[in-house]
Amino acid sequence: MLVVMQAHATEEQIRSVCERIESLGLKAHPIPGSLRTAIGITGNRGAVDLGVLESMVGVAECIPVSKPYKLVSREVKEEDTVVRVPTPSGEVSIGGEAIAMIAGPCAVESREQAFAIAERVKRAGARLFRGGAYKPRTSPYSFQGLGEPGLQILAEVRERFGLGIVTEAMDNESLDLVEKYADVIQIGARNMQNFSLLKRVGHCRKPVLLKRGMSATLDEFLMAAEYIMAEGNYNVILCERGVRTFSDFTRNTLDIAIIPAVKRRSHLPILVDPSHGTGRRHKVLPLSRAAVAAGADGLIVEVHHEPDRALSDGMQSIIPDELEQLMKEVRAIAAVLQRSLN
Amino acid sequence: MLVVMQAHATEEQIRSVCERIESLGLKAHPIPGSLRTAIGITGNRGAVDLGVLESMVGVAECIPVSKPYKLVSREVKEEDTVVRVPTPSGEVSIGGEAIAMIAGPCAVESREQAFAIAERVKRAGARLFRGGAYKPRTSPYSFQGLGEPGLQILAEVRERFGLGIVTEAMDNESLDLVEKYADVIQIGARNMQNFSLLKRVGHCRKPVLLKRGMSATLDEFLMAAEYIMAEGNYNVILCERGVRTFSDFTRNTLDIAIIPAVKRRSHLPILVDPSHGTGRRHKVLPLSRAAVAAGADGLIVEVHHEPDRALSDGMQSIIPDELEQLMKEVRAIAAVLQRSLN
Amino acid sequence: MLVVMQAHATEEQIRSVCERIESLGLKAHPIPGSLRTAIGITGNRGAVDLGVLESMVGVAECIPVSKPYKLVSREVKEEDTVVRVPTPSGEVSIGGEAIAMIAGPCAVESREQAFAIAERVKRAGARLFRGGAYKPRTSPYSFQGLGEPGLQILAEVRERFGLGIVTEAMDNESLDLVEKYADVIQIGARNMQNFSLLKRVGHCRKPVLLKRGMSATLDEFLMAAEYIMAEGNYNVILCERGVRTFSDFTRNTLDIAIIPAVKRRSHLPILVDPSHGTGRRHKVLPLSRAAVAAGADGLIVEVHHEPDRALSDGMQSIIPDELEQLMKEVRAIAAVLQRSLN
Amino acid sequence: MLVVMQAHATEEQIRSVCERIESLGLKAHPIPGSLRTAIGITGNRGAVDLGVLESMVGVAECIPVSKPYKLVSREVKEEDTVVRVPTPSGEVSIGGEAIAMIAGPCAVESREQAFAIAERVKRAGARLFRGGAYKPRTSPYSFQGLGEPGLQILAEVRERFGLGIVTEAMDNESLDLVEKYADVIQIGARNMQNFSLLKRVGHCRKPVLLKRGMSATLDEFLMAAEYIMAEGNYNVILCERGVRTFSDFTRNTLDIAIIPAVKRRSHLPILVDPSHGTGRRHKVLPLSRAAVAAGADGLIVEVHHEPDRALSDGMQSIIPDELEQLMKEVRAIAAVLQRSLN
Repeated sequence: MLVVMQAHATEEQIRSVCERIESLGLKAHPIPGSLRTAIGITGNRGAVDLGVLESMVGVAECIPVSKPYKLVSREVKEEDTVVRVPTPSGEVSIGGEAIAMIAGPCAVESREQAFAIAERVKRAGARLFRGGAYKPRTSPYSFQGLGEPGLQILAEVRERFGLGIVTEAMDNESLDLVEKYADVIQIGARNMQNFSLLKRVGHCRKPVLLKRGMSATLDEFLMAAEYIMAEGNYNVILCERGVRTFSDFTRNTLDIAIIPAVKRRSHLPILVDPSHGTGRRHKVLPLSRAAVAAGADGLIVEVHHEPDRALSDGMQSIIPDELEQLMKEVRAIAAVLQRSLN
Repeated sequence: MLVVMQAHATEEQIRSVCERIESLGLKAHPIPGSLRTAIGITGNRGAVDLGVLESMVGVAECIPVSKPYKLVSREVKEEDTVVRVPTPSGEVSIGGEAIAMIAGPCAVESREQAFAIAERVKRAGARLFRGGAYKPRTSPYSFQGLGEPGLQILAEVRERFGLGIVTEAMDNESLDLVEKYADVIQIGARNMQNFSLLKRVGHCRKPVLLKRGMSATLDEFLMAAEYIMAEGNYNVILCERGVRTFSDFTRNTLDIAIIPAVKRRSHLPILVDPSHGTGRRHKVLPLSRAAVAAGADGLIVEVHHEPDRALSDGMQSIIPDELEQLMKEVRAIAAVLQRSLN
Repeated sequence: MLVVMQAHATEEQIRSVCERIESLGLKAHPIPGSLRTAIGITGNRGAVDLGVLESMVGVAECIPVSKPYKLVSREVKEEDTVVRVPTPSGEVSIGGEAIAMIAGPCAVESREQAFAIAERVKRAGARLFRGGAYKPRTSPYSFQGLGEPGLQILAEVRERFGLGIVTEAMDNESLDLVEKYADVIQIGARNMQNFSLLKRVGHCRKPVLLKRGMSATLDEFLMAAEYIMAEGNYNVILCERGVRTFSDFTRNTLDIAIIPAVKRRSHLPILVDPSHGTGRRHKVLPLSRAAVAAGADGLIVEVHHEPDRALSDGMQSIIPDELEQLMKEVRAIAAVLQRSLN
Repeated sequence: MLVVMQAHATEEQIRSVCERIESLGLKAHPIPGSLRTAIGITGNRGAVDLGVLESMVGVAECIPVSKPYKLVSREVKEEDTVVRVPTPSGEVSIGGEAIAMIAGPCAVESREQAFAIAERVKRAGARLFRGGAYKPRTSPYSFQGLGEPGLQILAEVRERFGLGIVTEAMDNESLDLVEKYADVIQIGARNMQNFSLLKRVGHCRKPVLLKRGMSATLDEFLMAAEYIMAEGNYNVILCERGVRTFSDFTRNTLDIAIIPAVKRRSHLPILVDPSHGTGRRHKVLPLSRAAVAAGADGLIVEVHHEPDRALSDGMQSIIPDELEQLMKEVRAIAAVLQRSLN
C-alpha cells in the first residue's frame, strides 16, 4: 500500500498518518517528493484493511501495491501446472505443451442427442466431452437441465466413447452428484464468486474448470482460484468466456489478452470458451483460432448436431462438420507455436 | 421476436423462415419493407428459443421483443407492492409513500461493536439494522464473518433496540440460520444469479432484499426477482448497489437511472446502497440524497463508530454523526416529493 | 511513480532499476518489504514517461502516483471557481451558491420553433438558452443543423428574451462563428479529446462548457479542461452527460458520483445533462432532482414544445410544462442544500 | 422500427399510434400477439426520427430495426474492397488475400530515430511505415509531435527505404500537410466521431485508416466510415485498437470478435493495432497472432529501437528483433488461412 499525501499536507498530518500505520504493527516509509509526500507501507500480510487511511486528514489517495493471491501465483510456483484428467482412453493433460479440446452440447437433452454428438466429437478427435445436466438459466421458465438422469447419460457417453466428462455443478447439492460422475467439475461464470461453492469444490479430488465471471477483473478471477486451492485442490483450470462490455454485436466480449496476462502471473492453465465468448455460431471458428494463436491451453466448444432444435444456446453451437474444420485449423495453428492437440 | 431478413433475401428464403416459425407452433407475420422484409412472430410464451433462426440463410438479425418476466411486471400488477417488515417496535413498510432507512455495520464484529452502532442507528431514527454474519470476500484470507454467533448478536440487537434485522445469506446452509434470525433476508450482488439460492429463498416466509449483480442488466435483475416470486415469495425488495464500468474514481458506478426504470416496469420497491455504490465515505451523503431525489424507496447504508478499525469496508462506512446528517437531509428531500421517512 | 519489483528480484536487478531512474535525472527511493521491494520515484515533473521501467528485468509493475493536472486542481486554487456569464438581463453565475438552469431544444430548427421554446424557457424562470446550430450526428444522412442561420436565430432569441446563449462549436470553422454569437461555447462529448479544438477554445474570451466524453475517466476529463486552461481561458464549466456502459435501458449511464469526485479534486463548477444522460423523457425529471441533490452546480436540459416533431433527440426532450415542474422541484431541493436557482 | 405496445394498451391507443405513423408518410403494420400488439413500420429512409413514438400513451418500447449504413454495407457491395497503396517499391494491397504489415515508432522523434527504425522495419519485411508527426496526448504538457518537420523526415524515410507512409492527421490544418506527405492518412480513435474531419478526409484522394473510437459500437464505427465514403473517398481501411471496459490489466480490451463481425456486414478491410490494443509490450506478439488467426487483413504495430528512451508509448513498443519474430509467426499463421504477407 502506498499513501499519497495532498500537496498541502502539513508535517503534522504526515506524521500522524505514519503513527497510525505503525500503531497497526506495520512500517511506514515516507518519501518526500517535490510536490507532495508519499508513504510506503511494508509488513502487511493481508490482515489489515488499510483503505481507511484514505479518510485521514491530508491524505489524497491510497494505492494498493501487493497482489493478494499466493497459491495461484507464478512467484510461488514457477513452472506451468499440468492438470491430468484420467479418461477411459488414457490420461489427457491440460496445460503444458498439448492443447486440450473439450466439445459437446450446451445441455444434455436425451441419450440419443448426447450419443449422436459424442460420436461426432470423438470422430473429430476431441477426447473430452462437455454437456450440462444442471443449467443456470436467466429465466425460471427456461429448460433447467435433466439433473441426475443427465449425469447418467454422461456416464454412458464416457463408457461408450471413452471420452472424459466435463460438466457443471451449480450448488452444493449438485456438486455431490457431479463429483461422482464427472472427470472435470465445471464452475460457471455466475458462480465464480459463490465462495461457499468454491470452498466446497476445493475439497473435491477432481480437477475444476473455473470460468471467469462476467465482470471479473483478473485479480478477482485469480482470487477465486485461490479460494479453491486454499482448500487443498490444486488442479484448477481457468477459462475465459467473454466479459460484459458496452459492445453489442456479440453476447460477450472475448478478452483474448487475458491469456498472456494469466501466463505472466500464474502457473495455472487457461482455456477459452468461444461459444459463450461470442454467442454467435459464425464467430466460433475465427475466435477459436485466435485463442490458440494467443497461447490458450485449449478450447471448450458447444457442438450440436441439430442446433436449431437445441433446448438452449442453439444460436452459438457449431455443427459437427464445423467442429472437424475447427480441429483442423486449430491443429495447424498449434503447430506454428510448436504445440499439438491432445 | 422479430426476424429481419437481408436486403437481398429471396422470396424462397423468406418463405422458408416463415415455415420454420409455423413448424414451431408459432405464427409468422411477414412485413415487406422498401429495403428488406421483417417477420413478426406471435404465440411464443417463452418455451421456444428462437435465436436459432438467426442462422438461417437470408436472415440478417433476430430482435427479441417481449420481456420475459411476468410476476415482477407492472403489467401484471399495476399498484406498487408494499413489503411489510414486522419489528419489535411495530411494522416498517418498504415501498409506497414512506422511505425506509436501513443502517448498520458492514459486518458484525462483536457485541460491543454492534450495540454501539445500533444505539446510534436507533437514535438517528432508523428502524432497520443491517450487519453481516456471513461475508462474501474476494480473498479467502480476509475476515469471513462471525457466522451464527454473529446472528445471535443481531438477535440481541433486535430485542434490545427494537430494530428489525437485515442480514445476508450466502448459501443454503446459512440461509436456514438467517431465516431464523432475520426480519429481511439479504441476497448479495455476487449471488444475484445463484439460481438455487434464489429458488430456496423463494420458499422462505420472510421478505428478501435482492441486490443487483455487478454487471446485471435490468432484465436480468428483474428475472432474478422472478425466480424468487415464481416459488411463492412475493415480498421482494430490489436494491441498486452500483455496477462495474470503466470508471475508476469510485468502486462501482451507481446507476441512479435504474430507479425510474424499475418503477416503470415493475411494482416492486427499490432501495439504493450508496456505500457499496461508491466505495468512498465522502460520496455516501451526496449519493444518498440523489437516490431519494430520484425516487428510491429507501437506503441501506454502512455505518461504523470506528471506521478505521472496521474489519471490512471501513473506507465506505460513515460515522454515526454523518448518519444523523444524512437522515436530516434525506428527510427534507423526501418532503419535496411528498414522502416521509418511516 | 512507484515501481514494484517481483518477489524474486535480485539485489542487482533492484540496483539496476534505481540506476536507470537516477540516469533520468530523478531520485529513487527503494522500500524493502517482507515479500518484495518497491521503489518510489520523486522529482518527475511529467516530462519523463516512466512506463518503460515496466519492461526491465525483475519489475512486476509500475504504478502512477501523481495526478497529472495542475490548473484545474483544487490543490492549486482552493476556492470554487464562479464563471460569470453576461446576458442582456444581467450576469448569471455558474458555480458558487446559485444553481444554473440551461434549457432549450436539441437543435435550432426555425425561428418559430426557437421563439416558441424560448418564451416558455423564460417563463419557467431559466436564464440561459441552449440550442444547436451545428449538430454532430452519428449518421451523415441525419439533420446536421442550420449552421450560421441557426446562430442568427439564437442572436434574436438573446435580444428578444434576454436569455444568455449556450451553443456548440464542432470544429475550428464553426468556433469562429459560435464565439461571435454565443455567451457560452459548448464543446461536445465527441470532441472532449479533440485537442486542437480545445487549444483553440482556450484562446477564446468566452466561457466554455466542456462535456465529458462517452468513456472518459475523471482524469481524462480534467486533463481536457487543463488543455483549455493552459491556453489562458480559465472559465471552464464541466458537464457530466452519461457514460457508456453495458447497461442497456438508458442511452447512457449518468455517473452522478462524479459530482462529489470533481468537487474534491477541482475548483471548477460541474453541471449535469439529464437529457443525454438518460435518453428518455420520463427519466429527465428524476435524474435532474438527483443531480442537484448530489451537489451539481446546474442543469442543461433539452426542451421542445412539440417533441414528436423534433428533428433530433425528440425522445429525450421534455415539454415546457415538464420544465416548469422540473424547475419547481429543483428549486425545492436546492433549498434543502441552502442553494437557490439563479 | 418496431413499436411494442403495452399489454394493456387499448384498441384506441393502438389506432392512435398507427395514425401518427401514417401521418409521417410511413406505413404501419399492426401485429396482434397473444400478450400484446407490436406495430411494424416501413417506408422510413432515415429522415424521420421515430423514437418519439415511445412517449405515446400505451407504447412500451420502440425497437430500431434497419441498419443505418449504406455505402459501407456488404448488402450494397458484395465483394471485398481491396485498397491499393502506391509506394516507391510498388503497390501494397490492403484487403483481399494478402496481409499488410505497418510498423514504426509511435512518434517521429528525429531523423536518426526514424531511420534506425525504418531500416529494421524494412529488413523485417514490412512495406508500410507508421510514425506520428502530430500526436494527440491526454496531457497538454506531454510531447505533441514534431509537426511538419516530422512529416519531412517521413518523406525521407519513404525515399530512402521505399516504404509507404502511414501517419495521423489530427485536424483540418494538419490534414492538408499530412495529405501531401502520407500514402495513407490515419484518423485516430479520439477523432472517430470528429465529423468535420471525417467529411474533410472524404474529399482527399488518398486512402484513410480509420481507428475505432474507444467506446464506439460496431454501428457507430461503420457510420464513421460511411461519413468518409459519402463524400467520395471509398478507400477506407478500418482498424480495431481496443475498447474501454472495466478490465484493468490491459490499457484497452482488444475486441477481436469485431473482425468476423465487420466481415459479415461490410466489404471494407480491417486491421488490428495490438500495441494500443493492449498497451503492454509482452502482449503484442500473442495478440498479433490472434488477430491474424481471426481473419484480420493486417496489423499496425509500434516498434522502437530504444523503447525505454521513447518520447511516447515506450511501454507498448516492441523492439526490432521482436518485430522479426512477429513477422515470422504471423506469416506462418497466415499460411494456415491460405493467406500471405505482402
